[in-house]
This record gives sequence, C-alpha cells and structure tokens, in this order.
Amino acid sequence: MQTMIWQGDYLELLNQTKLPTAVEYIKCDNYQIVGEAIKKLEVRGAPAIGAAAAFGFVLGARQSAKQGKDAFWDSLLVVDRELRETRPTAVNLFWALDRMMNITKNSFHKMNVEALLNLLEKEAIDIFKEDKAINIALGKHGATLFTEPTAVLTHCNAGALATVAMGTALGVIRQAYADGNITRVFADETRPLLQGARLTAFELLQDQIPVTLITDNMAGWVMKNKMVSAVVVGADRITANGDVANKIGTYSVAVLAKEHGIPFYVAAPSSTFDFTLKTGDEIPIEQRNKREVTHIYDVQIAPLEVDVFNPAFDVTPHRFINGIITEHGVLRNDYTESIQKLKEKLKR
Amino acid sequence: MQTMIWQGDYLELLNQTKLPTAVEYIKCDNYQIVGEAIKKLEVRGAPAIGAAAAFGFVLGARQSAKQGKDAFWDSLLVVDRELRETRPTAVNLFWALDRMMNITKNSFHKMNVEALLNLLEKEAIDIFKEDKAINIALGKHGATLFTEPTAVLTHCNAGALATVAMGTALGVIRQAYADGNITRVFADETRPLLQGARLTAFELLQDQIPVTLITDNMAGWVMKNKMVSAVVVGADRITANGDVANKIGTYSVAVLAKEHGIPFYVAAPSSTFDFTLKTGDEIPIEQRNKREVTHIYDVQIAPLEVDVFNPAFDVTPHRFINGIITEHGVLRNDYTESIQKLKEKLKR
Repeated sequence: MQTMIWQGDYLELLNQTKLPTAVEYIKCDNYQIVGEAIKKLEVRGAPAIGAAAAFGFVLGARQSAKQGKDAFWDSLLVVDRELRETRPTAVNLFWALDRMMNITKNSFHKMNVEALLNLLEKEAIDIFKEDKAINIALGKHGATLFTEPTAVLTHCNAGALATVAMGTALGVIRQAYADGNITRVFADETRPLLQGARLTAFELLQDQIPVTLITDNMAGWVMKNKMVSAVVVGADRITANGDVANKIGTYSVAVLAKEHGIPFYVAAPSSTFDFTLKTGDEIPIEQRNKREVTHIYDVQIAPLEVDVFNPAFDVTPHRFINGIITEHGVLRNDYTESIQKLKEKLKR
Repeated sequence: MQTMIWQGDYLELLNQTKLPTAVEYIKCDNYQIVGEAIKKLEVRGAPAIGAAAAFGFVLGARQSAKQGKDAFWDSLLVVDRELRETRPTAVNLFWALDRMMNITKNSFHKMNVEALLNLLEKEAIDIFKEDKAINIALGKHGATLFTEPTAVLTHCNAGALATVAMGTALGVIRQAYADGNITRVFADETRPLLQGARLTAFELLQDQIPVTLITDNMAGWVMKNKMVSAVVVGADRITANGDVANKIGTYSVAVLAKEHGIPFYVAAPSSTFDFTLKTGDEIPIEQRNKREVTHIYDVQIAPLEVDVFNPAFDVTPHRFINGIITEHGVLRNDYTESIQKLKEKLKR
C-alpha cells in the first residue's frame, strides 16, 4: 500500500485516519490540502510528513508562480511558513522544507520561474526516492541486531505507512523477519489515535508477519511474562545527545524495557536528527485536542467536562536506548560522540 | 450514585457499561441476571462484585426453595457454582459466596427454609453494610499517608462504583481531598474497557474533585514531568506475600512509579486477601474476548483478523508496593509478616 503517489499535477495521499476499515486517497492539488492532511494526521510518520511537505511545497510554489514573479517570493514564504506550522515536533518536516527553501534561494536569481519549479519538483521526488533507499539501508543495519528467532514489541507505527517505503522500525522488523529472526510482533495499540491497532497491525497482516495487538497498558505484563525480548520504535526528533522524541507512550515502554533487561532500539533516518538541540528538554512537545482522548472516532468515552492532558509525543532520555539504527549504521552510546560523527559524515 | 440497591424482592444494579453517557439500572429478580451482570462487567470492582454475588445468592436460594426442601440443596450448589464461575480473579466474589455457603451449611439442618432465607438475606445486607464501614475506615487510614497537598495518579476505577460506598483507592483520595491534601487526580483511561475514562472521571467530577484524564501510555510522561507524586490503586486479589492482582496496566504503573521514586499504594479491604496463595504466580488471570481490544463499543479500531492478547488483570510483585491500605491500617513490608498478623486478627 502506497502512503503517497506523486501524479505530476497533484499528490495522492492515503488517508490513514480511515484505515483499516477503508482505503481512501486524498487528491491534493494545492499546498493547503497537504497542510491540512498533515495537521489532521491523514498523513503521519516523520519521514512521510517530510516527503508530503516537499510535494506540498512544489504545489505551493506553482500556486505562487501564478501570481507573477514579483509576488512569487513573498507568496512562497507564506507557503513555507504554513507548512512548517502544521506539526511542531517532527523534525523531518523542517528538514524537507529546508531542502526546498535552499534550492529556491540558490536558484531563484539564476533562472526563470518555470525552470525553478522543475528543479523543486525534482528535489521533492529525490526526497521521496531517497527515503526508499534509506529504509532499505536502515532495515539491513537494524536486522544485524537480531541473530536468533525473537519476538519484538513496537509502539505506534513506524512502518510503510509512516514512510514512503518499508518503514523504519517496521523496516528493521521486515528485514529481520525475512532473515528468519522475528517470530512475532507485539503491537501497542497506541492511544489516543490508535496507530498501532489501525496501521501497524494492518501492515504486518498484509505482509503475513505474525502480529499480536495489545492495549498500551499491557506492554509491561507482556515483558514480565517474557513474551518479547526486544523493542524497536521510530522517532520524530533526535537531539545531539541521543534523546528521542517519539509518539506518546514511547518513554513508558523504554522504562519498562530497562526494568526487564530488554534492549530498546530506535530506528530513524538521519533526517530525524536535530543537531541544533543539545538535549530532549529543548524539543517542543505538541499538545493536541482533548477530544482525541474523550472520544474514539465519534464515540464519547468520558464525561465531556473532564480536563485532559494530551501530549502527542514524549522524550526518551538516551540512557534508556540501547542503539539508534540509521541508514549509516547503528549508533551506540556515547551518543554525543556517535551523533557528532554522523553529523560530520552528513556535512550538515 | 448507588452501585446497587437491594429492594427486598430484587436487586437493582447500576449498569456501569452505559456510563458516563447514560444512567440505567438493571432489575435482577433472579440469580442468573446477577451472574450475567458480573460476567459482562455491568457491575465490576472487587467489593461490589462480592456484594452483588451475595444478593445473587439470596435470589438463587429463593429460586431453589421453590423446588421443595429435597431439591433445595442440590439446586443451591448450582447457584453457588455458577456465581463463582462468573469472574476467576477477584477473590471477594469467593469470599462473599463462602460467607453465604457457611450460613447455609450451619443453619440448613436447624431451621425451616423460610427462616434460612431470612438469615441469608440478612447476611447479604451485612456484607453490603460492612463494605460501607470498611470504605470509611480504609479511607481514614489511607489519608494519613498524605500530609501535604499532593497530585495523585490512579488506574482503573476503585471508587464508589467499584464498591457500595465511597470506594477503596478513591475512598482514600476522597478522604485526603477532604483533609486538603489532594490537589488533583490523574486518571488513566484504562483500556480496554475504559473504567478510568468512564467511571473514575465521572465519579470525581460528580464530587468536584479536580481530575485530569490521560491515556494509559501517558502515565510515565506525567511522572517524568513531576505532575504527580503518588499512586493509589485498588486490588482484585492479594496473596500472602503481598503480591497484588489488579486491572491490567497496574503493573506497568508500579514499575514507572518505582523508576520515578513515587510511592505506589494499594487500597483494598481485608476480603481481598487470599491467604491460601503464597505468591502472585498462583493467581489465575482471566483472559477476555479479543473484541474488547479490536473494538471500542461497536467501533472497529483494528483489522478483525489480528491476534489479540487480552488479560483482564496483571500481578504487581510486592517489592513495587510502598503500602497496602486496609480497613485495619496500612500494611508495610515485610508483607509476609504484616499480612500474617492481619490474618490472625481476622481469624480467617
């Protein structure tokens, strides 16, 4: 199942809020629809958000071009800002938009608008294609961590649906499964938006990888009963010291894994690293609508007048993390050092 | 709101599966309806199950009496067995039925059936009334643990709706709140059946105690951010060494509390202790239907063909527990010793 399809004139986005009961694509022929889709989590997952935003930028640049060369630049700044404001935590969004803005800045004065638009489309397609290659490389590095048949636990969805290809955490699991080293995946349902129940279970069933769905509060009991012996999750932002922002609940899973002596791995492309932040304390945490907690779809499950705390993400300190799997290899503690080396390699 | 009302001829049970959006009572004029209500969690919470089962036994004894004195005993054994089979983990169920059976055994040969039926009704009413007195005593003992304004976290519902009065964990919280020592309660929603969202949030709002609802996977992040400084939960069964069976997810909360240096308290009447079991490993854990995980009410949230693990309870080893609050005082480690003393006091 393709998360997104670039059709040249428009972007088709799989509406992930409808899964698993319906498969529907959203036709995005302007950047506003892309922005709304990111906000509403119709497209979600850090790498997928980055690629979608890049295509959104292309559509926005085309819309800006229609206003003439004089208005183009100011109009494009609005596009860039509005896309950046859709989600505050996932860094791939900013990373992808930075790439698009850099192309624009470097080329704006050198060529006509049409040539620039072609260049921007090429860059977005490159981001899309690179994500696929990154998934494959990351999956191969991660699979080396599994040397015997193992049941693993994952949280949220860091799969094909979070990327444009085989996924990050689920990319590792897919590769390790292909190697004969994954026996079963326990998927946390991941309230409030149930990405584990709706997306991870769906993806793994499609690939015929054995999957057991649990509610989030069962993870500790599953570990206590030795039903899993490793955890692999994705990431939305990783700071220079190896602290990891990821879907709310990830931190609890990491604490539980440590208590049970189970290795806890994070799988993320290098675009997830935010070298400008020293520690996880500096990561802005998106707070979402209380209705996500008081309702499930349209069903009310709590008194409407109750207070709600609804952070979309939490931060797992690096001391809980046994390895960060990237397309360039598995980083180990000391993370400040290994992440610095990665930064030098990437020349970012 | 009354969990149950004994009307002399029948039992009215608040249908807790309909809360918070509807307040409906089930009229139980035979033991089978009571048994079904326990199975379906229309009445739930260990102390409430005990009281409901006692009234169910009275109704069953009256039904048995209609079959004549010769058939009475065999018929009553069926009533007892069927009520016992409704839930395997909560020990108060067996404790209450043991009390009813003991009355029956001791009095069956000494009096006519009508006199016995009156005695059984009196015993059930005693269990009901005692639960109220126990809640009050337990609340007072528990409140002594809070000596300054404190935000607490609770899991599931160990409140008025789990008992016939002010609750166990929530009884402690109510008393400590009245004493000015509770600032706010964070309520885990408690998937799969959402007792925290539906019942705890509802109860506390009714009492105007500040409550914040969170999904289960937020508990760790709430602790990390120092938003709570104690945990209080109920129990379904406590073994001779202080291990505690309680709603699934309790164990994870206990591990998280330990990691954050937050005291973790269990509040339960002495009827929750199963002195016949040495450790929590011996407690049978009820596995429930997979539909509770793949659906919320009638809304499908996961692929239907996915495997599900759905234990209703988990066991928290005593080393994670900072105190067990009973109507006879707060038990501390060494639990084997303090629980043995409780047993001697109770002469059970």
